[in-house]
Amino acid sequence: MKNTYSIGVDIGGTNTDVGLVRDDGKIVARRNIPTNKYFDIDVYLKEITELVKDMMKEYELDTIDGIGICAPNGNTYNCTFSGATNLNFKGEFNVQEIVNKYMDVPVVVSNDANAAAFGEMVYGGGRGMKHLIMFTLGTGVGTGIIIDGKLVLGATGGAGELGHSIVIPGGRQCGCGLKGCLETYTSATGIRRTAIEMLEKNPSYDGVLSKIPTEELTSKAVGDAANAGDPLALKIFEETGYILGLAMANACSFSSPEAVFLMGGPVKAGDVLLNPVRKSFAENLLFVYKDSVEMKVSELPDNDAAILGAAAVLKNN
Amino acid sequence: MKNTYSIGVDIGGTNTDVGLVRDDGKIVARRNIPTNKYFDIDVYLKEITELVKDMMKEYELDTIDGIGICAPNGNTYNCTFSGATNLNFKGEFNVQEIVNKYMDVPVVVSNDANAAAFGEMVYGGGRGMKHLIMFTLGTGVGTGIIIDGKLVLGATGGAGELGHSIVIPGGRQCGCGLKGCLETYTSATGIRRTAIEMLEKNPSYDGVLSKIPTEELTSKAVGDAANAGDPLALKIFEETGYILGLAMANACSFSSPEAVFLMGGPVKAGDVLLNPVRKSFAENLLFVYKDSVEMKVSELPDNDAAILGAAAVLKNN
Repeated sequence: MKNTYSIGVDIGGTNTDVGLVRDDGKIVARRNIPTNKYFDIDVYLKEITELVKDMMKEYELDTIDGIGICAPNGNTYNCTFSGATNLNFKGEFNVQEIVNKYMDVPVVVSNDANAAAFGEMVYGGGRGMKHLIMFTLGTGVGTGIIIDGKLVLGATGGAGELGHSIVIPGGRQCGCGLKGCLETYTSATGIRRTAIEMLEKNPSYDGVLSKIPTEELTSKAVGDAANAGDPLALKIFEETGYILGLAMANACSFSSPEAVFLMGGPVKAGDVLLNPVRKSFAENLLFVYKDSVEMKVSELPDNDAAILGAAAVLKNN
Repeated sequence: MKNTYSIGVDIGGTNTDVGLVRDDGKIVARRNIPTNKYFDIDVYLKEITELVKDMMKEYELDTIDGIGICAPNGNTYNCTFSGATNLNFKGEFNVQEIVNKYMDVPVVVSNDANAAAFGEMVYGGGRGMKHLIMFTLGTGVGTGIIIDGKLVLGATGGAGELGHSIVIPGGRQCGCGLKGCLETYTSATGIRRTAIEMLEKNPSYDGVLSKIPTEELTSKAVGDAANAGDPLALKIFEETGYILGLAMANACSFSSPEAVFLMGGPVKAGDVLLNPVRKSFAENLLFVYKDSVEMKVSELPDNDAAILGAAAVLKNN
């Protein structure tokens, strides 16, 4: 059988990565342009279509399945990412319409976490599944939810914001205005907050974390310390893992998925974080789901995940 | 246009109500049998089909759209309610297969909360909506979730158990084994627990609730006291409403519904409970959903809700 191809576009504040994705999940070609050098959405998207045409020519392709675009604030319903604070493109626009001025192909827009979830199902550890939830840990916590093989978008297109579900009522102030949101505890930034709090609470501790200037006290630093056996770092991850596992278990009570996936920077710390997550997930999961859901780490390679996710959402119908 | 009809069957531990439902949501005929007098699922379901035939004859109907059955532990996927602890029918069985021995009609099984959610969408205050969440407050808290016009059933058929989402980590012991579940605070039983706790914490209080023997201290009694202006009762509902509103807001971060509905005994207390719920829901809702979701009370009449819900799920495809 002949392979088919699609395009995945990952729009970040600084760079835009464009990949030509074979239907087996291999990215056969890549290009990139600097997002922040563009101020006109039309010029920017036209440039992307030029890169697409260029890659198609290189691979002698007459057709592609479409262009999947993942962007901050990406909304699948109205095919836009207007309102993304870290992008130069202001005002209302429809990505499909603009792209179609230059290339007549299907276009779908999604946000990062939804793309990650769908990419995992189509190309990663969720192959064959129809129900999964992805938690992406980064500056914030993003989530993408798939039910019956479809992304949950809801009435607004903005469903799947479990990073802003409240796990500790009256807890930490979140940037969104609420208090106690999941991401204030389990994002890279949240882990940093826990580290600072714990250091303040344990003035007698003189381990490796106490030697790091506060501004350099990152989730990565905590992970390194935890993997070197530092007791405070391990305690930070125990607390993080408890809250994350609980939130993952709560999410199962909503949609009874086959798997809950984790990805993102903090996850790279490995078992020092994942074991507490596993423990809390098992302890806080409603018994009826015990045998039907597993906790997994994303199986997509870091460098490919965003492009694959973006392209995958073309298959969401 | 000619009306069509379907059957709704509401199976409770004591009674089974069977209703003939016209497509506009009117229950034109009703029958009932004592559930607990039957021990053989085959005999029991045959008896129900006799009642159905009887009503069809009375209304001179040649066909019906099907039989929708709601039962404790009802699972739509495998068409069973085996394992329901308060029913006499043990072992594995498939309701569709048994019913079809006596009547060749479509059969669908669901649980109470899912039926309530779907009934609300088809016949109640959710008409025209495609995304809603129903919270039913009773002995426990049940939830039914609809996304894109379909019930969320998940991998197991057992999705939508937000009564067992943990709202207060490390909080009240729940019958399910977890701690801090929503239903330990906001079910009728949970409200009773709050009342007992608050009375213990306020020994100087000598209002109406202090005169009620502990075993009679129900959610209804708290509601009556609150409506009579009793300050402790109002405080109990304030706490209940805070937790319920927060859980409802959290649920919106999952599926971005058009409405979150409430029904059940405690809701009948009215604004003394609903105002604190509204306040908490508004305060804890992520800003992106502010203009797209409303909080509503079920618009189905008490006596009809279960039968309408059971029948409605026939339309879930």
